[in-house]
Amino acid sequence: MPRPSVREQLVDAAMECFHERGFNGTGIQDIARTAGVPKGSVYNHFDSKEALAAEVMDRYAVSRRLEMLRDESLAPVPRLRAHFRYLAEDLERFLFERGCMFGNFGTELSNQSAAMRGNVDSRLNLWASAVTQVLEEARAAGALTTSLAPDQLGQFLVNAWEGAVLRAKVARSRNPLDGFFEVFDSLVA
Amino acid sequence: MPRPSVREQLVDAAMECFHERGFNGTGIQDIARTAGVPKGSVYNHFDSKEALAAEVMDRYAVSRRLEMLRDESLAPVPRLRAHFRYLAEDLERFLFERGCMFGNFGTELSNQSAAMRGNVDSRLNLWASAVTQVLEEARAAGALTTSLAPDQLGQFLVNAWEGAVLRAKVARSRNPLDGFFEVFDSLVA
Repeated sequence: MPRPSVREQLVDAAMECFHERGFNGTGIQDIARTAGVPKGSVYNHFDSKEALAAEVMDRYAVSRRLEMLRDESLAPVPRLRAHFRYLAEDLERFLFERGCMFGNFGTELSNQSAAMRGNVDSRLNLWASAVTQVLEEARAAGALTTSLAPDQLGQFLVNAWEGAVLRAKVARSRNPLDGFFEVFDSLVA
Repeated sequence: MPRPSVREQLVDAAMECFHERGFNGTGIQDIARTAGVPKGSVYNHFDSKEALAAEVMDRYAVSRRLEMLRDESLAPVPRLRAHFRYLAEDLERFLFERGCMFGNFGTELSNQSAAMRGNVDSRLNLWASAVTQVLEEARAAGALTTSLAPDQLGQFLVNAWEGAVLRAKVARSRNPLDGFFEVFDSLVA
């Protein structure tokens, strides 16, 4: 396997640092140290910490596996549940400490960077649309008992998930995520 | 009316700065400048930025008006709705830019300060307990249609609210809060 490029090492290191300490809590020096490269080489690859954060967001978005939401080998409701289960397992690997990078950056940077706010807004909209799409399939299949509109419910579920992830981070516990699934089953199944 | 003490001015200024820029994005100098006092006088009143943040949390908690949840002049469900409406109006005054200080500090500082994480955890638990209490009254009065347990639902609503507030901050829009109320009515009424 080829050795990861310095650029890739830097994106990996930045993702780790931003997850653990947030954007403002992370210095370029921290990222360079975590990547094991000299500080100067960060600026050989990225114009700014914000440019690095944008690339971290791209990579994080891929790791959310939105394509799971289009996997027609599963019926809509089990498919949606499997997607959130996947996200929960990813959080559990890090003992719920990391939270969601969309939520973390959205909270920390919305007032500080219009570009980052727009970036997080787009990601969350894209995700909520993909969730809504599955709920529309569920409705068409007669598999939604609630009278809520799929779009309403899709937006709500994404937001409620973000809140549950935040609470899991604060409580260092999976209980908030379990609570999400219980209400999910009552709203969606 | 007596002039506010320097200590009060500092807490006011810190609340404003932390809301706008977060904890790590705010320097002691910013707080002093906002309060219109010399930087040195911050340390005459507070041992650290964290000590100041703890006092800001106390004041913010009071402004959440949890006592609304014990106002028996309203039936349980309208009382709970009125509480969240009050919180929504408070967010709207600041064009949804501020978010919730519990959520903001919980997101930014949970991995950085065990004391702050514990503080936010306690506040959210206290709040969720108060919401649960109202839902128990609603259940006893036969006013809850859902089969979810009051505790389950109380915890979920607090988390879903935090997520909706975060999304409103990112989107600079009240839509996520409106969406919360629509689902609230479908779950609780």
